[in-house]
Amino acid sequence: MTPAIVLVEPQLAENIGAAARAMLNFGFTDLRLVTPRIEWPSERARQTSSGADIVIDGARVYRSFAEAVADLQVIIATCHVAREMVKPQITPTATAARLHAAQAEGLACGLVFGPERTGLINADQVLCDALCTIPTNPDFSSLNLGQAVLLLAWEYARAVDTTPAEVLRTGESDVASKQHLLSFLTRLEVELDACGFLRVPHMRAAMVQNLRAIFTRNQLTDQELRTLHGVLTELVTKRTWRGEV
Amino acid sequence: MTPAIVLVEPQLAENIGAAARAMLNFGFTDLRLVTPRIEWPSERARQTSSGADIVIDGARVYRSFAEAVADLQVIIATCHVAREMVKPQITPTATAARLHAAQAEGLACGLVFGPERTGLINADQVLCDALCTIPTNPDFSSLNLGQAVLLLAWEYARAVDTTPAEVLRTGESDVASKQHLLSFLTRLEVELDACGFLRVPHMRAAMVQNLRAIFTRNQLTDQELRTLHGVLTELVTKRTWRGEV
Repeated sequence: MTPAIVLVEPQLAENIGAAARAMLNFGFTDLRLVTPRIEWPSERARQTSSGADIVIDGARVYRSFAEAVADLQVIIATCHVAREMVKPQITPTATAARLHAAQAEGLACGLVFGPERTGLINADQVLCDALCTIPTNPDFSSLNLGQAVLLLAWEYARAVDTTPAEVLRTGESDVASKQHLLSFLTRLEVELDACGFLRVPHMRAAMVQNLRAIFTRNQLTDQELRTLHGVLTELVTKRTWRGEV
Repeated sequence: MTPAIVLVEPQLAENIGAAARAMLNFGFTDLRLVTPRIEWPSERARQTSSGADIVIDGARVYRSFAEAVADLQVIIATCHVAREMVKPQITPTATAARLHAAQAEGLACGLVFGPERTGLINADQVLCDALCTIPTNPDFSSLNLGQAVLLLAWEYARAVDTTPAEVLRTGESDVASKQHLLSFLTRLEVELDACGFLRVPHMRAAMVQNLRAIFTRNQLTDQELRTLHGVLTELVTKRTWRGEV
């Protein structure tokens, strides 16, 4: 179960649709709308959601904030913090960590977003366990509602994502063994000796090292080595042919 | 200098505007458009950017991908990876790390986003240093263009953000010292002894511990302790008054 997303008095159908799309992008499905300022259901929201019908169709409308969060046990609102309120102010990353920790304990969680222009009123903020403030450019800090939902949904998903930071997709072919790589490099050097490219003795070692660095840095596959062997053969052959003219 | 954001053949003014807004939210200003499918400048894009005029006005239009990235030294594209292409596939977090590392070396960087429906063509992908794949719900993986820009801009900003994970905003008042807290707790227990709430001897210790846990868990401020002292005084006074009737 991913947390519920509670939109309080959303004003634009486009934003509800964008929020629904962002939710489903990261596996959230429980959308709750507190007194939306548009008619609901909304065809415009459905269009903007680009196919997140499961979220749009499942969205529930509530008459009050208290009703919308009644069954939840942990709620965190994204908003600018009211200075007069003593309340934990946490980052999106800390918000994701808190939600995952709470859910691991079996607690029902929700993320709350206030109205587009005014943000969540203090009376609703004070009922939240923590307030999440997104650290933005202080001169241009207001995020679009759909963007804020996306950011939090991503942060929640990212916290438990196990995708390797970097992989080299090599398709059908494997990354070449060092033997295969060295065999290509040696052949290249033989050909370069033959054509005189490595003819200056005191520069030869450095040049060979540079060439080896070029072809070692990018994890060549066996298929790519075969291509490079072919390129070398062709260049050598053409050179010979031109030499004969 | 934050990285350039390169949008290749964007189709919708709303998406360019949303991208510009998301960029400025996290301090990006260098927007580059490769043969946009709408007229540029675009009033609709400006409206959607909600005041990110500096990004919209500074945006440059290019006739080709090669022109748009000509001055850049490291470019990473967000896209689904073409299976037939041997290319590093990295996460958004790894993308941010790579960009920060490159910029620390003084390299000019860019983030590339393909057209909304089709994504970046292979001929452009292959010129990128790495491909960033956003790990999404496999059943609903397509992110809105503006959302994708926001996600990467956030990830870039997050990587160097120093906001404390959690702070308690206490305003004018400090978090109470343990002496002040204990003084309130002791007074509460004296009053509860007086009214008989703690009368069952074998339960007294556990009850006192529970009450102390309640009021210790939430880091009360001095101002809040004064409020609670006032509440206690009022409750005791009213009880006494009612007792006199």
